[in-house]
Amino acid sequence: MPNLLSTLLLFTIIISPVIAQESPSEIPVPNHAQRAWQEAELGVIFHYDLHVFDQQKYNQAENRINPVYDYNIFNPENLDTDQWVRAAKAMGAKFALITATHETGFALYQSDINPYCLKAVRWQDGTGDIVRDFVNSCRKYGIQPGIYIGIRWNSFFGVHNFQVQGAGDFRDNRQNYYNRMVEGMVTELCTRYGPLFEIWFDGGADHPERGAPDVLPIVKKYQPHCLFYHNAQLAEARWGGSESGTVPYPCWATFPYPSADGITYPEIHENNFQLLKHGDPKGNYWMPAMSDAPLRGHNGRHEWFWEPGDEPHIFPLESLIQMYYFSVGHNSTLILGLTPDPKGQLPKPDVQRLAEFGHAIARRFDHPLASVAGEGQSLILDLDDESMINQVMLQEKIIEGERVRGFQLSYFDGSDWRSFYEGQCIGHKLIIRFDPVKASRIRMNVTESIAKPKIKNFSVFLVEE
Amino acid sequence: MPNLLSTLLLFTIIISPVIAQESPSEIPVPNHAQRAWQEAELGVIFHYDLHVFDQQKYNQAENRINPVYDYNIFNPENLDTDQWVRAAKAMGAKFALITATHETGFALYQSDINPYCLKAVRWQDGTGDIVRDFVNSCRKYGIQPGIYIGIRWNSFFGVHNFQVQGAGDFRDNRQNYYNRMVEGMVTELCTRYGPLFEIWFDGGADHPERGAPDVLPIVKKYQPHCLFYHNAQLAEARWGGSESGTVPYPCWATFPYPSADGITYPEIHENNFQLLKHGDPKGNYWMPAMSDAPLRGHNGRHEWFWEPGDEPHIFPLESLIQMYYFSVGHNSTLILGLTPDPKGQLPKPDVQRLAEFGHAIARRFDHPLASVAGEGQSLILDLDDESMINQVMLQEKIIEGERVRGFQLSYFDGSDWRSFYEGQCIGHKLIIRFDPVKASRIRMNVTESIAKPKIKNFSVFLVEE
Repeated sequence: MPNLLSTLLLFTIIISPVIAQESPSEIPVPNHAQRAWQEAELGVIFHYDLHVFDQQKYNQAENRINPVYDYNIFNPENLDTDQWVRAAKAMGAKFALITATHETGFALYQSDINPYCLKAVRWQDGTGDIVRDFVNSCRKYGIQPGIYIGIRWNSFFGVHNFQVQGAGDFRDNRQNYYNRMVEGMVTELCTRYGPLFEIWFDGGADHPERGAPDVLPIVKKYQPHCLFYHNAQLAEARWGGSESGTVPYPCWATFPYPSADGITYPEIHENNFQLLKHGDPKGNYWMPAMSDAPLRGHNGRHEWFWEPGDEPHIFPLESLIQMYYFSVGHNSTLILGLTPDPKGQLPKPDVQRLAEFGHAIARRFDHPLASVAGEGQSLILDLDDESMINQVMLQEKIIEGERVRGFQLSYFDGSDWRSFYEGQCIGHKLIIRFDPVKASRIRMNVTESIAKPKIKNFSVFLVEE
Repeated sequence: MPNLLSTLLLFTIIISPVIAQESPSEIPVPNHAQRAWQEAELGVIFHYDLHVFDQQKYNQAENRINPVYDYNIFNPENLDTDQWVRAAKAMGAKFALITATHETGFALYQSDINPYCLKAVRWQDGTGDIVRDFVNSCRKYGIQPGIYIGIRWNSFFGVHNFQVQGAGDFRDNRQNYYNRMVEGMVTELCTRYGPLFEIWFDGGADHPERGAPDVLPIVKKYQPHCLFYHNAQLAEARWGGSESGTVPYPCWATFPYPSADGITYPEIHENNFQLLKHGDPKGNYWMPAMSDAPLRGHNGRHEWFWEPGDEPHIFPLESLIQMYYFSVGHNSTLILGLTPDPKGQLPKPDVQRLAEFGHAIARRFDHPLASVAGEGQSLILDLDDESMINQVMLQEKIIEGERVRGFQLSYFDGSDWRSFYEGQCIGHKLIIRFDPVKASRIRMNVTESIAKPKIKNFSVFLVEE
C-alpha cells in the first residue's frame, strides 16, 4: 500500500505520554495463525458436493439423512479451479477454503481411508483430486489455501450429529472405525497439500472425551501454523453467531473460554449467541470472530450449494458492501460462501459480483485522505487542507492485544474540537461511518485501556456511495 | 467318459414292461440351470476378503460387526487366479464361485455403486478386478464361473442381518440406499462377466416385501440360465442343513416350498434342519441340496478364510472321500470352500490335497466294472465274468424327475439272487457301499415309483480303499 506509507510519512504523529496501565504479559494476544487470519480480513469458502449434481433442490436437513443415490453424477467436465481462485482474488480474498468433505461424507480427493471419495467415481477415471487442484490454483494466484472437513454428519456412513447410528457393540465398533477414518482423513489433508491457512471443522469437531475423533493433536502436529477452527477443546477463531456475514458492535476478539463448545459452556447458546457475537473484553482467550454468509443468500434464499435458478439470489453489491462494514469493519473476518456449478466453474454472475465487490472495497479504502500510527492515549491526524470526511478506519496493533476499551473521536472544524463518535472496541479493524463533516484534524482520545494503546492505523476517508 | 460308454455298449439292457404309473406333467423336474448344477456334482467356492490380510484370527461373529480398520492391507502381490482354478480343476470341480462381497461389504471388483471396493485400494493402483481375473481363469480352464454376493451383513455400511442399523428416517433412507446399492451390484455382476453358472446370496437375500433388495428379477433378466441361490421368493437349490459337506440319506431334490425361507416356513428350522437335509419326496418344487464345507475344517477348525497356521486343519484325504460319498453319493452337489493366502495364491498343502482328492475320486469311479441304462421297474447289469464288487452307482434321468421312491438291489451269486440293499431315493446320483460280494449279475428292482423309472446309469465297482 504505497499510498498509505507515503501518507504516514507526511503527517505528524502525536503520542500522548500518559499510559493508563501496562501489563502486557496478562493481555491475551493472537498467535501467528490468528494474526494472519485477522489481517487477511476477507476469505471465501467453496462448497462443492454430490448434490450439486442431482438437479434437485438442496435441503440440508434432508440431505444430512438421505444419501445421494448415484455418486457418479459427480462429473464436473470443465473443472477449472484456477477460475474459482481468480474470482476470489478479484473480490480481494486473501485465503480460500474448500469443503474436502461436507455432510454427504463424500471426499473431494484421493483418500486412502475413506473409500467414498473421488477414487470411486468415473470422473477422471477415478484419479481426480479437487483438493489438490484447488490448492495448486491458490498457490498459483497467491491465495492462502484452507480446508473444511465435515465430520458431524455423514449420510453415507450413517453419522448423525457426530454419532454413528445403531446400537450395541456394532454401533460402538463403527463409531471407533469412523473416528479413525476421520483422524486418517485429517492426517491425509494435513500432510499432502503443504501449509494450510485454516482448517475448518464443520460444526466443530466435538470432544474426544465425548467419543469424537481426536483431531486437534493431528492438526497441531502437521500444521502448527494453521488456524484451528474448531472443536470442544480449542477454537482459534469463533463463529460470529449468525450466517449473515455480519457481527454487531462491539465485537471483541477475546472470549472467556478456550473453545466455543455449547455443551461445556451452555451460556454460548443464550440470547441468540450474544457471546459469540460480541465476545468478551474480559475474556482470557484470543478467539476472533468469523462473519460468514453464502454469496447466494439474498431475498429469501441462503444457499451454500449451487442450485439451478439461484442467480437472482446473489447478494446485490450494496448488500455485500454493508456486509463488509458489519464484518471487516467490526473487527471480524468475513468469509463468503461460493459454489461452482455442475460443470466445475463458478457461474459468471457470481464472478461478476465478486469483482464488483472487490473494486468497490478497493475504491473506498485504498486511498485514505490521511493516515497515522502511534502509541498512547491520544492520536491526532492532520489533514493537509480542510477536507470533507465521512469514514474513519482504526486498527490496533493486535499482536499486542486489544488494549483500547473506550475511545472518543473528534474533529477540528477550524475553531473547536467537535466530538462525533464514542466507541469501545477497535481490535484489528474498526470502520466508522458518519455524516460528512469538514475538518482539518481528527483526534482519537482513548478514554479507557488496559495497557498502553498501540494504534497501527488511523485513517480517514471521504467515501462516495 | 469313454470307459462308461464302451461298457454301456457291452452289456445287455433289460427293461421291465410293467410301469407303476406315469404322470410326467405332474412330476417336478429341474430347470436347465439346476440340471447343470447337479450334473456338475463338484464345485468350489473361493473366499477372499479384507481380514485374510489382517494377521488376526478370523471370528465371524466379531468380523460381522467390526470393520477392518485399514482396507489397504488388501495387497495380494502375487495374485494368480489361474493357479486357483487349476487347483479346483485338479479336484474335479466343474464350477467355481468367488465371494465378490462377503460380510465386510468390501467388493473384489470395480464397482460403480459400492465405493468400498477394489477402486479404493492402492493395490494395482485401484484398478484391480479379482472377479474379472477369476472369471477369465475359469473360462481359460473350462470351469463354470459363479459369484457369491454377501448382502446380509456389511460391517462397513452397518448392516446387520439385512437391516441397516439406526432409527427413524435416517435408517430407512440408508436402508433404501443400501438396497439400491445391492441391486446395482447384482446388476453389475450379472452384466459384466458373461454367463454365470450360479449366483449365491449369502444367507439368502431375504424378501423384498420385508424391505430387502429386489434381486431376483435382476438375476432372471440378465442371467436367465444361472442357478439362483437364493432368497425368500425362490431357491433353485437349497442348503443341505449343515456345513459338514454332507447330507444324510435319503436326500430328495424336491421340496414342499418354492424357497427355503425360515420366516415364511418355520418348519425349515425344526429338528436341526431335517427338511433341508432330507428334502421331501412329496414336494412340488425342484430344489436340490448343496453340501458345503471349508477345506480347512478338520480337527476343531472350520475356516472359510485363510489364516496363518491352519494347514494342519486341512481335511485329510480320507475325510474328503467320506464327504464325497455323503454328498455327491447322496444326490447332493458338493461345494468345497477354498481360500487363497495373503499373497494371492492357494497354499501348496491345499493344492496338494485337492489334487489327491481328484485323483482318488477318478480312480474309484472312472472305471466301472459294468454299466447299464434303461427304463422300467427292473434293470439287470451283467458282468462278463463273476467279479468281486463293493460299490454301486445309480443315477436317474433327473430331467424327467425323481421317479423312484423305493428300490431293492440283488446280486446273482451263481445260483440265487441275494438281496443286499434296499433304498428309497436315487435322484441324480446314489453311491452304495457294501461288503464285497462275488457276483455275475446285479439287479435293481424298483418297488415304488411315481412314474416309469428312467435310469441313466447303473454301474458297479470294486473300489480298493
